[in-house]
Amino acid sequence: MAKAPKEKDNLKIIPLGGTNEIGKNLTVIEYKEEIVVIDCGLKFPDDEMFGIDVVIPDVSYLVKNSDRVKGIFITHGHEDHIGALPYVLKQINVPVYATKLTAALINLKLVEHGIQDVVTINIVKPKDIVKLDKLSVEYIKVNHSIADACALAVHSPLGVVVHTGDFKVDFTPVDGEVIDLPRFAELGRRGVVALLADSTNVDREGYTVSESTVGESFKRIFHGVKGRIIIATFASNIHRIQQIIEAGVENGRKIAVSGRSMEKIIPVAMDLGYLKVDEKHLISVDDVRKYPDSQVLIITTGSQGEPMAALSRMSNGMHRKIQVKSGDTVVFSSSPIPGNEKPIFGTIDKLAKLGANVIYGKLEAVHVSGHACKEEIKLIHTLTRPKHFIPVHGEFRMLKEHADLAMKMGMAPSNIVIPENGDIIEVNRRNVKKTGTVNSGHILIDGLGVGDVGKIVLRDRKLLSEDGIITVVVTMEKESAMVVAGPDIISRGFVYVKEAEDLMENARRVVRETLDDCEEKRITDWNVLKTVIKDSLRSYLYEKTQRRPMILPIIMEV
Amino acid sequence: MAKAPKEKDNLKIIPLGGTNEIGKNLTVIEYKEEIVVIDCGLKFPDDEMFGIDVVIPDVSYLVKNSDRVKGIFITHGHEDHIGALPYVLKQINVPVYATKLTAALINLKLVEHGIQDVVTINIVKPKDIVKLDKLSVEYIKVNHSIADACALAVHSPLGVVVHTGDFKVDFTPVDGEVIDLPRFAELGRRGVVALLADSTNVDREGYTVSESTVGESFKRIFHGVKGRIIIATFASNIHRIQQIIEAGVENGRKIAVSGRSMEKIIPVAMDLGYLKVDEKHLISVDDVRKYPDSQVLIITTGSQGEPMAALSRMSNGMHRKIQVKSGDTVVFSSSPIPGNEKPIFGTIDKLAKLGANVIYGKLEAVHVSGHACKEEIKLIHTLTRPKHFIPVHGEFRMLKEHADLAMKMGMAPSNIVIPENGDIIEVNRRNVKKTGTVNSGHILIDGLGVGDVGKIVLRDRKLLSEDGIITVVVTMEKESAMVVAGPDIISRGFVYVKEAEDLMENARRVVRETLDDCEEKRITDWNVLKTVIKDSLRSYLYEKTQRRPMILPIIMEV
Repeated sequence: MAKAPKEKDNLKIIPLGGTNEIGKNLTVIEYKEEIVVIDCGLKFPDDEMFGIDVVIPDVSYLVKNSDRVKGIFITHGHEDHIGALPYVLKQINVPVYATKLTAALINLKLVEHGIQDVVTINIVKPKDIVKLDKLSVEYIKVNHSIADACALAVHSPLGVVVHTGDFKVDFTPVDGEVIDLPRFAELGRRGVVALLADSTNVDREGYTVSESTVGESFKRIFHGVKGRIIIATFASNIHRIQQIIEAGVENGRKIAVSGRSMEKIIPVAMDLGYLKVDEKHLISVDDVRKYPDSQVLIITTGSQGEPMAALSRMSNGMHRKIQVKSGDTVVFSSSPIPGNEKPIFGTIDKLAKLGANVIYGKLEAVHVSGHACKEEIKLIHTLTRPKHFIPVHGEFRMLKEHADLAMKMGMAPSNIVIPENGDIIEVNRRNVKKTGTVNSGHILIDGLGVGDVGKIVLRDRKLLSEDGIITVVVTMEKESAMVVAGPDIISRGFVYVKEAEDLMENARRVVRETLDDCEEKRITDWNVLKTVIKDSLRSYLYEKTQRRPMILPIIMEV
Repeated sequence: MAKAPKEKDNLKIIPLGGTNEIGKNLTVIEYKEEIVVIDCGLKFPDDEMFGIDVVIPDVSYLVKNSDRVKGIFITHGHEDHIGALPYVLKQINVPVYATKLTAALINLKLVEHGIQDVVTINIVKPKDIVKLDKLSVEYIKVNHSIADACALAVHSPLGVVVHTGDFKVDFTPVDGEVIDLPRFAELGRRGVVALLADSTNVDREGYTVSESTVGESFKRIFHGVKGRIIIATFASNIHRIQQIIEAGVENGRKIAVSGRSMEKIIPVAMDLGYLKVDEKHLISVDDVRKYPDSQVLIITTGSQGEPMAALSRMSNGMHRKIQVKSGDTVVFSSSPIPGNEKPIFGTIDKLAKLGANVIYGKLEAVHVSGHACKEEIKLIHTLTRPKHFIPVHGEFRMLKEHADLAMKMGMAPSNIVIPENGDIIEVNRRNVKKTGTVNSGHILIDGLGVGDVGKIVLRDRKLLSEDGIITVVVTMEKESAMVVAGPDIISRGFVYVKEAEDLMENARRVVRETLDDCEEKRITDWNVLKTVIKDSLRSYLYEKTQRRPMILPIIMEV
């Protein structure tokens, strides 16, 4: 029996994001002196992250080891895989590798951040292998809800690590390019030391339906619609947009586009040849009114009920160019991301009230998922025949279900690791184990601030959101602690003051009595005074209202 | 042809809640000098209603006409049908009519508000008719996800108005009491002038599955589970609880109950005979540890991921008596109410991390809806053969779909009214029309405050939640407007000050320069000063952070 390799010879796999969560995918794979990063995504804030714009992974581990980082290898162009790049590249400027469309989408982001000239993006294509020193990274074609998506195979002296990225198996994809299953099989034959695979839809039975079926639904639905058609989907789903356009053209319609991200991505996708449209079918949103309703199709954003997106603005009558009216047909070509149900249904209701016929939900088959269901996942496990397995991309229950699935397929529990962000997972040809952790976590982005909003600020925002704030200001003489002016009480978000004049006047009285009491007791320590004011006011207000506003006592010294 | 009756002879139907929304159901039916109120429910706040506990309908119309209100007739004991009663009864003390279990649930609420002794609850049973002067109100048995649910028939000289309440058609209900379809048919034969019907599930095809199928699932699942079983459902779903207990007992388990609402409702339901349990099968939560895991079943609350409910506390390790562990099986006997998906999945993940096998979702058939799907709704339309139709209980898209369904069944569009809260809908034997509106809307309850939180307070709470608040205090001499102390700047929820000392110091400098500038220009009007401070600080902070905290300038006079 061979001697176990020394620890430093093991492959290390360190997820810095994307495990026990949906989004901010980032996986580190390292061998000796080389570090390869797979994806660099963001996620959108939870409900409790008040005021936060986006969330990115903590990459302090990469910053500390930046000399060893050979590149960031992107699987595809969705936000949860590329969205953190501008922030991370400002910290470690390393080469980025991506397929053509993905690179173009990354470039749009870099331009927004003004760093497009200082970053190197290397364009690769499926079957390309980027050779580093001991490691090399191979791109493998997969199907997904965005064009140009790839899995990655990281070749190492200890065998291949396969990372599926996001994938589905589509035997009839819109662009005719089927996932490269033979290559997965070949890697399996040669020896996959570890498989990291997408767990998003592991709790769904069977197979994901082919993207091309949606095109058939569009043709069926459009046939016979007399008014305008307005259809919302994700801007990055180029194949979906292709099918919408084809069905619209077949139906004798001109195509207009409304929505910031869509207006940015569609020209790029056309330039690069991912979207094939005869320009004569396209019209500006400004020209929509020049055509009869039966000849108009508008593709738009806002399928998730995002408040500022074009479709939401149409539903609120706030879109400057498109007024929804009776006779319009609005199609949601999407399914709700958990948490978005309420705004989506709100948008549907408003559109229906304006007289539109709104098509949404499963019955009309206007959307399919981009992620593999159980049987497709089993197919990938079967083809790659991995020695070890690490489920990624999912909440804990999904990772666990994916691990269970691997066990049902015959893998020993000891060959499986359910990861947490920051885990160091060491793997060699014989075994896999967690051996430690590195810094990980989420960095909150609020406006221009990166990481300056932490737990305390969020806790304050939550408190403020619940019962508002009461500011108590009193001006006192420094030496004697005698009140010179005030106390003044100003509230925001607590109660409508005109309807609660008595309450506020009594609160002022409570503070004044507290101050008198302190004066008698000769309390001159500002901190003690503030605490006493806070306590007396808090208990008075809770008794009267059963609310707990934040109380902010301020003492001005003269 | 008969002369059209005078307007005052029409029946008036006025929904004050429950249309274009889910919840706070309240419908007014009046004829000449009599007003009958059907249901008096609350709804839970939207995401944007920061800090609000519950929402109730504006009943100022009832208060204004309180001498004409003959009673509030409750269809069943869910919160969206009884939850506003304590608040409304404090404004108009009129008799309440309800079936036995419903009355008991109402009484629990009245006790909480300390008004149980001043309110009259009349207990009725299916087939009872409460005779008023010209109107009379009949209770008709229906099936729903709570025992003792009824539809109402309001008999008038102009014909019968049928209000279904919430209903489903269950031919094999747990208590053996099938919805009284023959009575609906008989009323239809005699002449239903208007049907008001539940629209909750109108967008679902087919039939709702019988409640009794869930019992079969429980037996199948419990069979072979070796560890403890913890099962969460709605406390008011007595028939569900009955089936859980029966399956548990058959499986050789003792039953413990945890969760405030469940601990309150179960004894009441047992007392009244709605829940049939041999007490020897029940144990206290304190005694759970005395039994082997295979003999324990715990029924609990928190199936919607409510943060303070028992199951959520278990998932956080905060439940004082039950620690979830490996080997436990946790069943969510519920489906997510839209908007609750994220907290529910969060709870599932935490339970799975603790080692529990969590069963949720549709595959295991551990939940059925309490609301009629399309075919059941068609059945009610067919049996009651209404002259006019008013869809209720639903968001706009549902009401519209329900109206479309009535039209597909042959009703003329002019015989249908899609209502909005506050609409006066007049109906007689020949036609139906909207003739005006009364005050309606939502009243927000926050702590002890009823209606003292309005748009301004909510807007402030939203602003505060996004970027926090900055208070600027400066003490000035009254006459000269010279600065005596300050400016001091205190922020909450804006930025973590220790990491942003420079920013805050510069902000102070900006304010000081603004004040100097004002002094030079001899500006002494406090309001002008405040505006100038606000403007200069706002633009400085936005430039530096792209955030817009609320800015609260306070000038103290000495």
